[in-house]
Amino acid sequence: MKLASDVVGKWLSATGPEADVVVSTRVRLARNLSDVPFTHRARPSDHERTVEGVRWALSDAGYMTQGQFLDNEQLSEPHGQYLVERHLASPDFVASKAKRGLYVSKDETVSLMVNEEDHLRFQVMASGLDFPEAFTAAAALDEKLETQLQYAFSTEFGFLTACPTNLGTGMRASVLVHLPALVITREIEKVLRGAMHIGLAVRGLYGEGTETKGNFFQISNQKTVGQTEWEIIETIADISRQVIQYERKAREYLMNKLRVEVEDKVFRSFGLLRTARVLSSDEAINLIANLRLGVALGLVNEINLAEVTRLLILVRPANLQVMLGETLTAAERDERRATFVRETLVHP
Amino acid sequence: MKLASDVVGKWLSATGPEADVVVSTRVRLARNLSDVPFTHRARPSDHERTVEGVRWALSDAGYMTQGQFLDNEQLSEPHGQYLVERHLASPDFVASKAKRGLYVSKDETVSLMVNEEDHLRFQVMASGLDFPEAFTAAAALDEKLETQLQYAFSTEFGFLTACPTNLGTGMRASVLVHLPALVITREIEKVLRGAMHIGLAVRGLYGEGTETKGNFFQISNQKTVGQTEWEIIETIADISRQVIQYERKAREYLMNKLRVEVEDKVFRSFGLLRTARVLSSDEAINLIANLRLGVALGLVNEINLAEVTRLLILVRPANLQVMLGETLTAAERDERRATFVRETLVHP
Repeated sequence: MKLASDVVGKWLSATGPEADVVVSTRVRLARNLSDVPFTHRARPSDHERTVEGVRWALSDAGYMTQGQFLDNEQLSEPHGQYLVERHLASPDFVASKAKRGLYVSKDETVSLMVNEEDHLRFQVMASGLDFPEAFTAAAALDEKLETQLQYAFSTEFGFLTACPTNLGTGMRASVLVHLPALVITREIEKVLRGAMHIGLAVRGLYGEGTETKGNFFQISNQKTVGQTEWEIIETIADISRQVIQYERKAREYLMNKLRVEVEDKVFRSFGLLRTARVLSSDEAINLIANLRLGVALGLVNEINLAEVTRLLILVRPANLQVMLGETLTAAERDERRATFVRETLVHP
Repeated sequence: MKLASDVVGKWLSATGPEADVVVSTRVRLARNLSDVPFTHRARPSDHERTVEGVRWALSDAGYMTQGQFLDNEQLSEPHGQYLVERHLASPDFVASKAKRGLYVSKDETVSLMVNEEDHLRFQVMASGLDFPEAFTAAAALDEKLETQLQYAFSTEFGFLTACPTNLGTGMRASVLVHLPALVITREIEKVLRGAMHIGLAVRGLYGEGTETKGNFFQISNQKTVGQTEWEIIETIADISRQVIQYERKAREYLMNKLRVEVEDKVFRSFGLLRTARVLSSDEAINLIANLRLGVALGLVNEINLAEVTRLLILVRPANLQVMLGETLTAAERDERRATFVRETLVHP
């Protein structure tokens, strides 16, 4: 497996719509094979059969030329953590001992896990707020796979899944938004409560159970059944547009009323990133997030939105080590992280 | 009164001996007139007579051409606070309503308060560890004044003072030391306890009852009686030399064993000073103190010891306002302080 080092996924390119607020859009579909027991009940031979079947279906659909298929060995450390940090695989998936497979497209917009909780979990990520792009690509992959694979499907319930929370569409659609201004103006709770009120889930940078580091939030659907895919997506897209408006209003307020305070926060963060000799992953992410706000507000011009967003992934422990080509202790990482960030930002 | 704006006293020039650790040396003498009641018991007419007598004596001794004599009006705000920040007058003295006088030499090494707790309190400050310089100059002024003034003196007790803690020599001798490495290595308490054990007092940057901001400590004698001036001074000088050795050993240890951590502290502080848009006086002093350590260790070369030490005074509220020629609110000061520090340090 050849790991990309300092290149990050295309979905982090900040080229999509509303990229000042929305980092990325993601559509994930859960599918199971009708003739194999669910992953957690399947035997090792079933697991292997599933991996081989999916690999063949991907190959037949022409995906293998645009990406690579990783097997168990290639999912072990540090690769596993590297993939989790890049949002290409789940922690449970890389930690599993079962026979697994992971397809990742070269630009990292498409990934497909075989034998996670469901037989197939595949996602498409797009830059900015772009459900048309993400959903169209996910649906296209779904259709192509279905020509080769027999999905477990009920005319009553829709797609059958290992956990009932995914039943029906099997779809989880989400946007990753950066809301620093709403956090500073303390309106964030009110705004997020609005999203939760209409049945959406709000989580941190790395999904379920993760902290909201750097003021990044993931808004996703909870319900997968009783609505069409497009109805679900429209709900998230609507609320996202509202959240974007609120965040932009808050940013305007900051620039008009709290200009000095926000400049102080942004430039101090930029200053620390360019001078620190020891930098933990958490501190780095918070400082980079503040710098990202500065870039989005036009206060910082030495670096663009794509470059600052890219850093969010590269400072992560496993990505840092893969990039540097070394296995490092936590203390060594903190030093090397500081050096990397400093060298990247001093003369960007 | 013409206040120096961005020029600070010669005693802050970092040109004296051991200037990497010792900021300055100070010798202060308390004297009273034999034919006037002590200040707190004297009548307004006594106060006036004392001021005029001392002014005349200074003039006769030729001091007036090398400095200026400030009266009550010139000691009111913001000048009073400005003088306190520059270590040229005490807070009680500038707050007093009695008729007072303050002589300050042009280079701010010599100052003399009339009608503070004692009729005369005069001091000489020198850069670095330099008691010969400070004491010789203080003794010379003392002798010249004595030709014109009748001091209250007892052959049994020595010089009589308003408070018995100053009786005898009337002398307070002190060194202002910067001990950041001993603070980082947590040896500071042990070292200062040694000084206190032999009867010396340890205080913060602004004397009695002040906090030890920025790891600056003032070591001074407690006893003024039963020893000659030179015996007292030798005790302080001896302990100072020991403290200097300990601090230098601790700095060596930092450079050899904790190089990354100390660089992190120094360069982060430098980074914040060059980027912050809002800077309180306390934060500024702590960051400047860290930067001073970096300069002393040779880690920072863009600025020298005199320039960084000078900032310690100029960022103080009253000095900042005098320098900018404006009366400012606390919030305005924090902004203007950040701007001043940034502009001074970005292209020093």
